[in-house]
Amino acid sequence: MAKLTTRAEDYSKWYNELVVKADLAENSGVRGCMVIKPYGYAIWEKMRDEMDRKFKETGHVNAYFPLFVPKSLFEAEEKNAEGFAKECAVVTHYRLKNDPDNPGKLIVDPNAKLEEELIVRPTSEAIIWSTYKNWIQSYRDLPILINQWANVVRWEMRTRLFLRTAEFLWQEGHTAHATRQEAIEESEQMLDVYADFAENFMAIPVVRGIKTPSERFAGADETYCIEALMQDGKALQAGTSHFLGQNFAKAFDVKFTNKEGKIEYAWATSWGTSTRLMGALIMTHSDDHGLVLPPSLAPIQVVIVPIFKGEEQLEQISKVALDIQAKLKAKGISVKFDNDTQNKPGWKFAEYELKGVPVRMAIGPKDLENGTVEIARRDNLTKEVQPIDNVDTYIEELLKTIQQDVFNKAKTYRDTHVTKVDTYEEFKKVLEEKGGFISAHWDGTDEEEEQIKNETKATIRCIPLDNEMEEGVSLITGKPSKQRVLFAKAY
Amino acid sequence: MAKLTTRAEDYSKWYNELVVKADLAENSGVRGCMVIKPYGYAIWEKMRDEMDRKFKETGHVNAYFPLFVPKSLFEAEEKNAEGFAKECAVVTHYRLKNDPDNPGKLIVDPNAKLEEELIVRPTSEAIIWSTYKNWIQSYRDLPILINQWANVVRWEMRTRLFLRTAEFLWQEGHTAHATRQEAIEESEQMLDVYADFAENFMAIPVVRGIKTPSERFAGADETYCIEALMQDGKALQAGTSHFLGQNFAKAFDVKFTNKEGKIEYAWATSWGTSTRLMGALIMTHSDDHGLVLPPSLAPIQVVIVPIFKGEEQLEQISKVALDIQAKLKAKGISVKFDNDTQNKPGWKFAEYELKGVPVRMAIGPKDLENGTVEIARRDNLTKEVQPIDNVDTYIEELLKTIQQDVFNKAKTYRDTHVTKVDTYEEFKKVLEEKGGFISAHWDGTDEEEEQIKNETKATIRCIPLDNEMEEGVSLITGKPSKQRVLFAKAY
Repeated sequence: MAKLTTRAEDYSKWYNELVVKADLAENSGVRGCMVIKPYGYAIWEKMRDEMDRKFKETGHVNAYFPLFVPKSLFEAEEKNAEGFAKECAVVTHYRLKNDPDNPGKLIVDPNAKLEEELIVRPTSEAIIWSTYKNWIQSYRDLPILINQWANVVRWEMRTRLFLRTAEFLWQEGHTAHATRQEAIEESEQMLDVYADFAENFMAIPVVRGIKTPSERFAGADETYCIEALMQDGKALQAGTSHFLGQNFAKAFDVKFTNKEGKIEYAWATSWGTSTRLMGALIMTHSDDHGLVLPPSLAPIQVVIVPIFKGEEQLEQISKVALDIQAKLKAKGISVKFDNDTQNKPGWKFAEYELKGVPVRMAIGPKDLENGTVEIARRDNLTKEVQPIDNVDTYIEELLKTIQQDVFNKAKTYRDTHVTKVDTYEEFKKVLEEKGGFISAHWDGTDEEEEQIKNETKATIRCIPLDNEMEEGVSLITGKPSKQRVLFAKAY
Repeated sequence: MAKLTTRAEDYSKWYNELVVKADLAENSGVRGCMVIKPYGYAIWEKMRDEMDRKFKETGHVNAYFPLFVPKSLFEAEEKNAEGFAKECAVVTHYRLKNDPDNPGKLIVDPNAKLEEELIVRPTSEAIIWSTYKNWIQSYRDLPILINQWANVVRWEMRTRLFLRTAEFLWQEGHTAHATRQEAIEESEQMLDVYADFAENFMAIPVVRGIKTPSERFAGADETYCIEALMQDGKALQAGTSHFLGQNFAKAFDVKFTNKEGKIEYAWATSWGTSTRLMGALIMTHSDDHGLVLPPSLAPIQVVIVPIFKGEEQLEQISKVALDIQAKLKAKGISVKFDNDTQNKPGWKFAEYELKGVPVRMAIGPKDLENGTVEIARRDNLTKEVQPIDNVDTYIEELLKTIQQDVFNKAKTYRDTHVTKVDTYEEFKKVLEEKGGFISAHWDGTDEEEEQIKNETKATIRCIPLDNEMEEGVSLITGKPSKQRVLFAKAY
């Protein structure tokens, strides 16, 4: 197996190679669209199931709305339409026919042109709020707390596996509320759900914050986000939750009679995370040997590799291995016993390192004599010998330790890559030499934000929710500012 | 709540009303596409989870392939392309722009025309086999046992909720094998998985059979199917499993080196079930009061309705109800305690009947005195009084009984609606007066099948797999035949 390009050599190349070599995903025959391979999909399924559980726990239900948005609905909320118009896949025809000039080939049938074009959903506010119009008459019909797992399409010119693809999988929550306050609380609650999921399940530390107006979702009054930091010092937006005000209710005329008997427009939120999280997962934890997965997300948590010569030894080791496997499975731990005889242990070690299996257990003839096994941790690459007795309990605890250690490592990296700067010179220097989040004052205008972006490629990732107030002056214009914001180059 | 149209009055109207009133689905603002509402989606989720479990149990893994199929890939397998060309949604552009003549409106940007049109997948053989080409070199790469949960689009002119919609949700398995025999065994295995799922989870009795050549999936060498019978005597194809031979391997040049070192084309299967199963579920079990759900599929299995006057009574009943609820939940049974004070018990009874909640428990002040509860079964509308002590155990057993009874009832209906006929006159009479499956001889030609279809609207649903051989003569041409086939009008 050819070695991975190292992160130090070429971080971007390392990422692309890793995604493909670890069998997570690959480019497809369709421009900008990926194939999510079984191993990658198994990780996504774990993420999906855990998020779904959290959504239901907070009172949400799933539903499914159409893939297509008629153009007239799409353009109803102007800012939203403007924000997505440039990256829309558009269905114009509904039939193919035989090409009279090329037997065996097909052409679009010009007689099957749609009266109204259909947009392949880049996001579903329009189709959903045009539906909610019929569902909402009274405050008794509220709140509506719906989530959808779906595919969406945003025509991207420069795509990268998981991080930016023309089609991606995601969940989008769309809720309707009777009051402004309730809608704001919902968007904040879902941000907390995302942050909790990212930190405690994906082991990715995140900053909770608010986007500046220029970085807001098209059609939102406020966008909340969680921002993670990758190992190359670039930030990645890992989830967003939007307070949409009454913008979509007004665009689609969704009114209700409130408790006081007055007619008003409904209040909205939407919130989403996508397969982009796979990119965050990979780039937060992995190393030059391959994937590092927190145990909660690993399709295989423990692999047992027998070290043997000849069938008799394999048979003896298998007995012990199968017993350990059964005990671990009884604890809900997923275990693979790799008794394949074609590949050597060394090959297997490399393969499971590449795939990010958190714990590898090797059992050889000496181990049988001594009543021990060798346990290797993927995250820190340490090895140790442990007694076979109660090794299942030991591993159960070890997986918890690994989950925590993986998070701690990422958090230490993140915490040591937040740099306070007070001058633009310093800003550029830190951005160039160290990367990471840069905490600096900003004058609150689109202009300064834009200038910094144009000159440095750094954007304001967010205004952290737990920000301390601090008097200061902004980087370029020197205007007074009351708090620092987080800048970074970003994916 | 206005009553449902009865089945006897107008079966089709009954179905449409029921789907909407029971909050399962509704038509959307997009022609032919439906909105699957939360209650309907919760049922679909249960079906999906159980099927997914069965697929994994039989060694399959999930993956995800692109929504779009470039035209050149779509047309590669000619029969498949021909079969779906007439119902394809086609993406031709990737951008909208402001309409210069109508401020606030958008038009398709003529400068953003795709070089090659993209077909929204009506099924994924083409995109998947063009991918498998890169995955398969040696017999060691086989079998590939992949399933995908996805949305697909087939442009239908006459649509009906769940039964026939332009977009629907489904799963599609796509497997690749080293030998013809293994691929045939896979397609037969998956038919068995579907039949087991339909009968033991959905409580829908099905006939396992083979489609005639004219009813085969476009591109298949053999199509296996499960056929169910609805209460109006029409059949519904509930799942299909296709042996695709080497057709797609040849179209996409997927070759491998076999164990003997020779190059050959891979063998394929595909198999699918869809949200159409929701239609089968509704039409198999439901009655004039609303949905009837087998307990395995019911989002709420038990509802507890308090019968009370005043807050004090409600409080006393609540104590008992919450205790029962907790005990049932501990047994993995989903329970709703409906302590809403706005709606009267009678309204609630009708509502939960409409929604198909299998067991309703009513608790009133008399019950508290007597230490009893009233238990009503949704499936047969019977009521009984039971002691509160151990009522959780009683209900656990009752749910199993209901699951079995719902199946038995459907099976009795089905079994009494399979009629053997030996003349075309009798065939038409039975079809007209009784409906159901008609078991008759056929001469094996497309022509006779076509004539019967044109004259009676009945099609050959399948040649049952467990068919007894029997000499006979066919309905129209009088040619000799060795076995009967099943005809029916179908959804």
